[in-house]
Amino acid sequence: MIVQGQEAIDKAVETITGDMSALWITIAAILVFFMQAGFTLVEIGFTRSKNSGNIIMKNFMDLSVGSIMFWAVGYAIMYGSDLVGGGFFRSSPSDQGYFFFSATDWHNLFFQTVFCATAATIVSGAIAGRTKFSTYLIFSALLTTLIYPISGSWYWPFDDDAWLNTAGFIDFAGSSVVHAVGGAAALVAAILVGPRIGKYVDGKAKVIAGHNMAFGALGVFILWLGWFGFNGGSQLAWGGNNTVSAVNVIINTNLAAAIGAIGALFFTWSRYGKADISMTLNGALAGLVGITAGCGAVNPFGALAIGLVCGIVVVCSIEFIDKKLKIDDPVGAISVHGVCGFLGTVLVGLFALDGGLFYGGNGKLLWVQTYGSLSYILWSALASFVILFILKKTMGLRVSEKEEIEGLDIHEHGMEAYPEHISSQNN
Amino acid sequence: MIVQGQEAIDKAVETITGDMSALWITIAAILVFFMQAGFTLVEIGFTRSKNSGNIIMKNFMDLSVGSIMFWAVGYAIMYGSDLVGGGFFRSSPSDQGYFFFSATDWHNLFFQTVFCATAATIVSGAIAGRTKFSTYLIFSALLTTLIYPISGSWYWPFDDDAWLNTAGFIDFAGSSVVHAVGGAAALVAAILVGPRIGKYVDGKAKVIAGHNMAFGALGVFILWLGWFGFNGGSQLAWGGNNTVSAVNVIINTNLAAAIGAIGALFFTWSRYGKADISMTLNGALAGLVGITAGCGAVNPFGALAIGLVCGIVVVCSIEFIDKKLKIDDPVGAISVHGVCGFLGTVLVGLFALDGGLFYGGNGKLLWVQTYGSLSYILWSALASFVILFILKKTMGLRVSEKEEIEGLDIHEHGMEAYPEHISSQNN
Amino acid sequence: MIVQGQEAIDKAVETITGDMSALWITIAAILVFFMQAGFTLVEIGFTRSKNSGNIIMKNFMDLSVGSIMFWAVGYAIMYGSDLVGGGFFRSSPSDQGYFFFSATDWHNLFFQTVFCATAATIVSGAIAGRTKFSTYLIFSALLTTLIYPISGSWYWPFDDDAWLNTAGFIDFAGSSVVHAVGGAAALVAAILVGPRIGKYVDGKAKVIAGHNMAFGALGVFILWLGWFGFNGGSQLAWGGNNTVSAVNVIINTNLAAAIGAIGALFFTWSRYGKADISMTLNGALAGLVGITAGCGAVNPFGALAIGLVCGIVVVCSIEFIDKKLKIDDPVGAISVHGVCGFLGTVLVGLFALDGGLFYGGNGKLLWVQTYGSLSYILWSALASFVILFILKKTMGLRVSEKEEIEGLDIHEHGMEAYPEHISSQNN
Repeated sequence: MIVQGQEAIDKAVETITGDMSALWITIAAILVFFMQAGFTLVEIGFTRSKNSGNIIMKNFMDLSVGSIMFWAVGYAIMYGSDLVGGGFFRSSPSDQGYFFFSATDWHNLFFQTVFCATAATIVSGAIAGRTKFSTYLIFSALLTTLIYPISGSWYWPFDDDAWLNTAGFIDFAGSSVVHAVGGAAALVAAILVGPRIGKYVDGKAKVIAGHNMAFGALGVFILWLGWFGFNGGSQLAWGGNNTVSAVNVIINTNLAAAIGAIGALFFTWSRYGKADISMTLNGALAGLVGITAGCGAVNPFGALAIGLVCGIVVVCSIEFIDKKLKIDDPVGAISVHGVCGFLGTVLVGLFALDGGLFYGGNGKLLWVQTYGSLSYILWSALASFVILFILKKTMGLRVSEKEEIEGLDIHEHGMEAYPEHISSQNN
Repeated sequence: MIVQGQEAIDKAVETITGDMSALWITIAAILVFFMQAGFTLVEIGFTRSKNSGNIIMKNFMDLSVGSIMFWAVGYAIMYGSDLVGGGFFRSSPSDQGYFFFSATDWHNLFFQTVFCATAATIVSGAIAGRTKFSTYLIFSALLTTLIYPISGSWYWPFDDDAWLNTAGFIDFAGSSVVHAVGGAAALVAAILVGPRIGKYVDGKAKVIAGHNMAFGALGVFILWLGWFGFNGGSQLAWGGNNTVSAVNVIINTNLAAAIGAIGALFFTWSRYGKADISMTLNGALAGLVGITAGCGAVNPFGALAIGLVCGIVVVCSIEFIDKKLKIDDPVGAISVHGVCGFLGTVLVGLFALDGGLFYGGNGKLLWVQTYGSLSYILWSALASFVILFILKKTMGLRVSEKEEIEGLDIHEHGMEAYPEHISSQNN
Repeated sequence: MIVQGQEAIDKAVETITGDMSALWITIAAILVFFMQAGFTLVEIGFTRSKNSGNIIMKNFMDLSVGSIMFWAVGYAIMYGSDLVGGGFFRSSPSDQGYFFFSATDWHNLFFQTVFCATAATIVSGAIAGRTKFSTYLIFSALLTTLIYPISGSWYWPFDDDAWLNTAGFIDFAGSSVVHAVGGAAALVAAILVGPRIGKYVDGKAKVIAGHNMAFGALGVFILWLGWFGFNGGSQLAWGGNNTVSAVNVIINTNLAAAIGAIGALFFTWSRYGKADISMTLNGALAGLVGITAGCGAVNPFGALAIGLVCGIVVVCSIEFIDKKLKIDDPVGAISVHGVCGFLGTVLVGLFALDGGLFYGGNGKLLWVQTYGSLSYILWSALASFVILFILKKTMGLRVSEKEEIEGLDIHEHGMEAYPEHISSQNN
């Protein structure tokens, strides 16, 4: 019998804890994967039936193309050990095996892949109903291959070469890295594509109602569910303190979503005299996006504060973008992901238990949060503009007027989503 | 090298087992969370399209309000270490941190929170289509803050101060604590709110068909799925015997749901000459509610027996309540959750391997199960009556006749759920 | 203090790893369970609204009847230690407790039960819209009780008595054992039941469009999600190398689905001039079915190759079966599950890193894969033919012409799935 020491026990514990962490990350990734279905349903429900098939295809391809491109290229650019362009992005030496991923920590690849697909999908909703499918595919591929992985490389390797990491930036699961990046791309895309026909008549914004609130609500439930994996899984570990932290993150996430919905409900109720359904649903999403940066840095009171602010701001932002800026964003993606992504990141500077202004911090964190988030927004907006501008001048961004009015489903995909005519008012 | 003993190994094992248990409970809670989507879809599908948006809002608020109130107050009332009113409910000293939860076992808070939201949501279906949204919100908040936590405190702390625990009561995951409590509140609410316009004409019950069986079926699939977390997670641990027990619970749950559906199918087939869809779906739910009390105390044969009884009884109960008692319960919530919750609890007294009458017990367990479940029903009915009676005399429970006929979506929420007119027969 | 050795540590690690494995298998089974909802939605979405309720009932009963029959009989026939008929199938001695399962590895029963229900459900789609419900129930029960468990017994006990296991056959999660078996039964059933009225007019195939692409897409998302459990869970373990392998399997699964969808998209786009929605969705399913055999034996490049081939072949196969063979398969189940199940199994003979022809193998594996998969197809086709032929001659397979035209929902189930008339073109 070989007498063993505490060392042998510690080693065994470490191995098992690693396996348990991989289990949690894998399950979290599966939950995040499901968010694709949630995004699809929200976008379908909040827009007209004549484009539902097109929306399905866009979201389906974000996931499909993103899964392959991120495995082939994106992960290496985001996590590789070599720096490129003074650390502007990364690359991976062949023995690391990140290009055409062949390393062994598959669970990390899986988790990051589904995050990447999420970023791409945010854009889809903002340009629904008038964008050419072929052009969309190219933009989606470039976003998952370049824009998002480069964003990620600035922070999430959590090493000394990630400039926002060394700056002390806090974005636990990606209010900025994922959502503001997606939201900024959505903003640029919505501007360049232009509004749907009939959206602005004589300079006034018209309401173009979605066609199925049940799909929209189911989508939001699925997103809320998936967010437990999105934020909770971003602990990237399970066991001991990590267990406590990961579930604390989940509770903060849940509270922020809840108060976001409640905030939007009462705000619209008092403002319009009606308890608005789509705004309430968006309020929950706003709370979720907002808490994503700080869910590991704030306590439940902070989570409630962030969620409430986002739930109210999202309503004002949707109105402002729709009516004042006259940018047509059919599902409110710019406000939910862009505005609340930025806001949630900045509010960490106020509510973080360690460094937040309201908890004895000196304002340094608030400043880092602000310029960090703005850096993401500027990068994504700029890169998106360059790509979309070139696409606009070459392939074109928009379908023809006839195609738009009759619906993308018939013209782009040769079929209707509801061929038994669910609708009698098809345009 | 410090030589270690079995003690050190045992300590490491205990720590890891605790983390593994927390992982299972967290995942189970995520599954239970998803049940909110299931309840929403069942209620939408089984009722008319003109109220779908209102149903979304009610379920969404049950979850949102419940999540915050249970974190702030409910958990402390249910699990706190101080007794109030001779143990009628509990309170938590500040160093325990259960009010505005700040303890470290977040997974327990999460699991109990989603249970609480479930209890609230049961009521929603029974009063669909005619209830004022504002009044509903207040009732839902009181149910999640007071009625349900007090119910829970009688049993689920599993300590000597929980009177039903010391009495030997068995309700593994809440056939009574959650479902009969919700069902009794639903009964009282349905009576006080009164039937929908057109439901009873010349003293005869009319069928008001739901508008989307696909939503209904998807909802039931999601509920069935979520129930694996509801019941399996209620083992509250994973590892060794707990692993065996938790999955045995899941198998019992699955078998009871299956035979409940089959029982309702053949019962309606022989009774009406048609294999009834909504009754079959409700049969599965009845089996699930019924097995929730005994899933950890019976073997698969017992689970099949309980599920079968519930699957048949639920059909008779729905008919009886609808046609004889003339209580309008659009989705059958009173029968599914109330009647089968009671029945499932009592049947543990027959089928429990330890103490059940059919397995050598002396009838004591049967008696405890009966008065325990009745206690829950009486408490919930009484508390609900007091609250709803006050609300009826002050705010009013019902919308106006015009609002009801034209639909709650337009009047309460200013929009339609399917604005492209999915339906040509809107009332 | 008793001094302990490495042995005691190893024992503790083994116990915990077993518990962790059971946790993963249980969660994987819950994901596979959810696939029932996915199958239901795909079948509903891809067919007409007048039969949606019937589809719900069939899928619901596959799960319900299958759950009970597999617990009572199937598991013992598949995994029992006694051989019957020279190993044609198995039986279980009473001390093993597999009939009316009473052993302790409930997680294995649970995982295999949901697989069994999957096999049954494949048939449903191929004979949608004209099959008698009562006859379907009997066939489904026999498939889950006999056809599938016997198939499973040839390989999945992974012991020396399983002839395909000893032959070196590779079918990780059941491209053949589950999908080709289901697909072959679907083929026989579709032939014997015959095409829907109006499908073939003057010898030409007519398109009968499904009624809801959103349901179809949601179904595919849910199936894709569930497949992570289907394939990843088939590692049947978690911890150490098993962790790496299980998540590698998940990545392969995801890549194959992604490229399957992309392949079908571009193939139909270049072929029809339109990016076909239902073919793209089926392309993802084809990739998933195809990779199911080899997901543990190939690398990501192999997974992409298999997925791409399946995504393109499925389009050709659906057309060929529809237009040339004139077999009416409303959802393409024969092509997706049968053809791609066979193809995926055979392609392991080319792409397996150990034994594949493209990786230095000598062709032996390719041969085993081919005759192994054909054995499954022949067995399932033959057994299905005998059962269905007898049912045809006795109870009859088809509803009356009137029932078919007016819809199975009204005649078999006494109601409509969408009673507010979602559709104005009901036949």
